[in-house]
Amino acid sequence: MKIIVVGASGILGQAVVKHLQALGHDIITASRNSGMERVDIRDDASVRALFARTGTVDAIVSTAGVVSFEPLSSMSTEQFMLGLQDKFLGQVRLALIGLAFVNAGGSITLTTGITGHQPIAAGVNATAVNLGLEGFVQAAALELPNRIRINAVSPNVLTEALPDFAPYFPGFGSVAGAEAARAYERSIAGIQTGQVFKVGY
Amino acid sequence: MKIIVVGASGILGQAVVKHLQALGHDIITASRNSGMERVDIRDDASVRALFARTGTVDAIVSTAGVVSFEPLSSMSTEQFMLGLQDKFLGQVRLALIGLAFVNAGGSITLTTGITGHQPIAAGVNATAVNLGLEGFVQAAALELPNRIRINAVSPNVLTEALPDFAPYFPGFGSVAGAEAARAYERSIAGIQTGQVFKVGY
Repeated sequence: MKIIVVGASGILGQAVVKHLQALGHDIITASRNSGMERVDIRDDASVRALFARTGTVDAIVSTAGVVSFEPLSSMSTEQFMLGLQDKFLGQVRLALIGLAFVNAGGSITLTTGITGHQPIAAGVNATAVNLGLEGFVQAAALELPNRIRINAVSPNVLTEALPDFAPYFPGFGSVAGAEAARAYERSIAGIQTGQVFKVGY
Repeated sequence: MKIIVVGASGILGQAVVKHLQALGHDIITASRNSGMERVDIRDDASVRALFARTGTVDAIVSTAGVVSFEPLSSMSTEQFMLGLQDKFLGQVRLALIGLAFVNAGGSITLTTGITGHQPIAAGVNATAVNLGLEGFVQAAALELPNRIRINAVSPNVLTEALPDFAPYFPGFGSVAGAEAARAYERSIAGIQTGQVFKVGY
């Protein structure tokens, strides 16, 4: 399959690319500042230009997007908006614009995260963005044409990210990127749609 | 209690105001174009000015916010953004800014809706916004100071709104505004926090 991975340079994206390449798929890597293709998921024109260059694909995978980590009492609306603009609308934009470039029977896989279901300190933006995205996936699955499917992968904190994030996730354990990557394969090659694949929790 | 109801002029807001007034509470009504106070929930300065005028309250109730209804295949990112800016971030803004004006032991009650859990045609923005808001409520409840609580009310389509919305909700039944209003009383006077009160479904 021809698969585009947006956010390919991140810790999770690298693991997903490695896993999908090992399965023999033809992978197009895209990131903001590196990879085979450059894209800014906060910008319609950038996303349109990306798909104009790649042409149709069998699967869109997004491991892209950031949220704000800030205690509730000091969080500004601008900080909250960051997660809405980037991880939430950025991934929705990839789906809305990318849809026209997905072959019949193809798939779209977005990334949420454990904080959607297990809140952490300073994580109110993360919980809200992740659950909102899962709502998008659940509803969008029911309206997709041409047997195209859409799912979300919701991993625990990645083992490879613990050096930076361990203090935010006390007692959460973690999931290796390689294990999380299998959920993307499941979304791409399986028959399920509108699902949230929780991995490592 | 001194309670501000934002979105007081809407069908749901009117029912909530009537119910809370009948219980003897002191109600401040606020809406974009009517009521005792005018406020634009999409604007930080407008919300700050509102609370500067009202001073502290025992409860903030929001029945405000709109989303886009549009089929997935024709939805633009701008249309999707409308719901993020208005119903989602607008209500989050009321909570983030209003928090400093809620008395100890007080409450914040936001409004989501049945589409968060039961997707409808052309409702992908509604589902995403409602679930995102519920994520905000669930996470924010864990960080609120001074025994302040926060909940969401998720009503079925209102009986009074059926003339406009019945075609979108086939077989859903409906809930009377007066019945939905009781969930706001429950949020305000009860002890629960971080909850989603589903009403009429």
